[in-house]
Amino acid sequence: MSPTDLFQFNLTHRDPATGARAGFLSTPHGDIPTPVFMPVGTQATVKTLSTHEVEALGAAIILSNTYHLYLRPGSDLIADLGGLHRFMNWQRPILTDSGGFQVFSLSATNTIDDEGVTFRSHIDGSRHRFTPERAMAIQEQLGADIVMAFDECAPHPSTPEYTRAAMNRTHRWLERCIAAKQRPDQALFGIVQGGMYSDLRRESAVFVAEQPVTGCAIGGLGVGEPKPEMYEMLSITTAELPTNKPRYMMGIGSPEDLIEGIARGVDMFDCVQPTRLGRHGAAWTPDGRINLLNTRWARDDQPIEVGCDCYACVHHTRAYIRHLLRAEEALGQRLATIHNVRFLIRLMTSARQAIMADEYGAFRTQFLERFQPVPDAVRAAQREAYGRRKERG
Amino acid sequence: MSPTDLFQFNLTHRDPATGARAGFLSTPHGDIPTPVFMPVGTQATVKTLSTHEVEALGAAIILSNTYHLYLRPGSDLIADLGGLHRFMNWQRPILTDSGGFQVFSLSATNTIDDEGVTFRSHIDGSRHRFTPERAMAIQEQLGADIVMAFDECAPHPSTPEYTRAAMNRTHRWLERCIAAKQRPDQALFGIVQGGMYSDLRRESAVFVAEQPVTGCAIGGLGVGEPKPEMYEMLSITTAELPTNKPRYMMGIGSPEDLIEGIARGVDMFDCVQPTRLGRHGAAWTPDGRINLLNTRWARDDQPIEVGCDCYACVHHTRAYIRHLLRAEEALGQRLATIHNVRFLIRLMTSARQAIMADEYGAFRTQFLERFQPVPDAVRAAQREAYGRRKERG
Repeated sequence: MSPTDLFQFNLTHRDPATGARAGFLSTPHGDIPTPVFMPVGTQATVKTLSTHEVEALGAAIILSNTYHLYLRPGSDLIADLGGLHRFMNWQRPILTDSGGFQVFSLSATNTIDDEGVTFRSHIDGSRHRFTPERAMAIQEQLGADIVMAFDECAPHPSTPEYTRAAMNRTHRWLERCIAAKQRPDQALFGIVQGGMYSDLRRESAVFVAEQPVTGCAIGGLGVGEPKPEMYEMLSITTAELPTNKPRYMMGIGSPEDLIEGIARGVDMFDCVQPTRLGRHGAAWTPDGRINLLNTRWARDDQPIEVGCDCYACVHHTRAYIRHLLRAEEALGQRLATIHNVRFLIRLMTSARQAIMADEYGAFRTQFLERFQPVPDAVRAAQREAYGRRKERG
Repeated sequence: MSPTDLFQFNLTHRDPATGARAGFLSTPHGDIPTPVFMPVGTQATVKTLSTHEVEALGAAIILSNTYHLYLRPGSDLIADLGGLHRFMNWQRPILTDSGGFQVFSLSATNTIDDEGVTFRSHIDGSRHRFTPERAMAIQEQLGADIVMAFDECAPHPSTPEYTRAAMNRTHRWLERCIAAKQRPDQALFGIVQGGMYSDLRRESAVFVAEQPVTGCAIGGLGVGEPKPEMYEMLSITTAELPTNKPRYMMGIGSPEDLIEGIARGVDMFDCVQPTRLGRHGAAWTPDGRINLLNTRWARDDQPIEVGCDCYACVHHTRAYIRHLLRAEEALGQRLATIHNVRFLIRLMTSARQAIMADEYGAFRTQFLERFQPVPDAVRAAQREAYGRRKERG
């Protein structure tokens, strides 16, 4: 079978008032209802969770990182053991990124040329080289259902000149990825770049839209720019993308950004936020983010979120989870992670239902009126503290 | 109801050839088949595991640490939230130690007198005082089914004079614990001390045997002495203990020690070994301990132990678990912990069946012929490296 047969994207419904879409993306490992949030399993594990827990959270697909798996345990080893699905015992769909983002953000050193990128491992300093062809070959060894084109995400901020050069390189690399790709049971997504420049974003979107790819990803957003700018770039991009292909906004995971992304026609998201915030003791509720380490919860016998159906909320109190987090017990990090991932997956389910009912506009308004986002200044400080770029999907 | 009604110990069977015993200990939170291994949940969590996972492993009872919980989150707080069972959402029996061992091994500083012990918290340096009466009151706040007398475990090695003084103090403190104890839904166990001196061991065992306690614990073994010495002290002790009360060997958890302990008439064990070893990447098999980090397992697609029914062995390969451990992923530590705890619980189940079938002698021989224990020298080095005394139950 050709990828066309294995990867059908059926748009079930479009919200008439916004650009929100509901659909199904079929893959060799199962169907994915969209909009969808993909938990990140960087090193072949969604941090702190077992695959059965990720399944129980309702995750229809997870993301894993090519750069990390290539370096450790090695893509040869994973191929020998039957591919990533079998290696980690996860039977649902997987998407792997191309390693492009990580070689720039995470490697010890890197030098880029039009052919590819030479870099040193952040683990042991060893020297490696990624090219579009190599990125495709490694992803074929891993065997994910969806594979990403090798791209260059220019740092933010960059000059128009550099951003254009990086965009052009990304386009040439996409053509080489398309030519190099072999496995019919994998679908390739192209990536739109263009930084914070409307004309480049538009040009890049038009280019990717014209390529024979299964889906279109939007890269280079959520890299430190103000939210209105991010939303504007996103709108400009999705306006140029074909309606009959899935759109994936990379590395975005704040609840309010998901809601705004869906309104602009995005179908897929991934982010380390729910897992990373959970490990740091932060949890989402419909009112906003709470810090579980706060003294305020010391004797609180309510769940993190009253009414949530996740394992943490059904079985444990804020007081207990706070104790575990303070005592640096792994279970505390796990319970907060479980809640945060489930929060986003429930949010996607509710969004999908609202789209199907032609009520996405009201749903979005209601959610955003109640949910207090983290102020930009706090977000910036945390980005600094957590090294947010280090692990993005 | 009186403790006598709530805590029945029925000795179902005694192996005619060895001293091994099989029985049931009933508690307000359920019956415990003996011999039993109790996983350690120091800070109200068996490290890396959820309560449902501990239940699924077949744990009939867990141990938790008074010293740790008193300091954080505080026994007042746990009492306010309905006691330890409710706080951590564990419905089966719990045993709490008295804090005696930890105030000596773990606190920042401590000074002992005949009344009690004054110590500084290892967490924040704050000053506290434990007496037998206080240890009982704290354990009543926690609400475990089985509570332990406040004792002094003399360091090893100690002079006969010091060991006798510590033993005498432990005996006086046991009398005070018996007088102070109030809750009828809790059973008190006394503790035999006496170091490595046969006469003191015998004297202490006789003393504890004569007290109105529900069970008799054996403390101060496995503290660095050679194994033959430990087994000899154990035999001397159990010979003096009443047959109709459960015997609990504290802090012991090597598979070979459990097998030898059962042969000497012990009914209950606890130890951090399965959890701590798991977090360090070591796992038990019927042939002995393996280091999961070893390169040898890099491409091994077998479970940790072929035929084991634990979650880790049913779902994951050595190669995957090794990868997770190398990458310092929490799931790797969890999977190794799950296997090790299940290994000991399966061992106890097999031992019990062998006792019931009058075949314990052969069972013991077969197990010990196959299982290669860790050499004493390696054990001593690891004791040093891991700070083994820091967390013992």
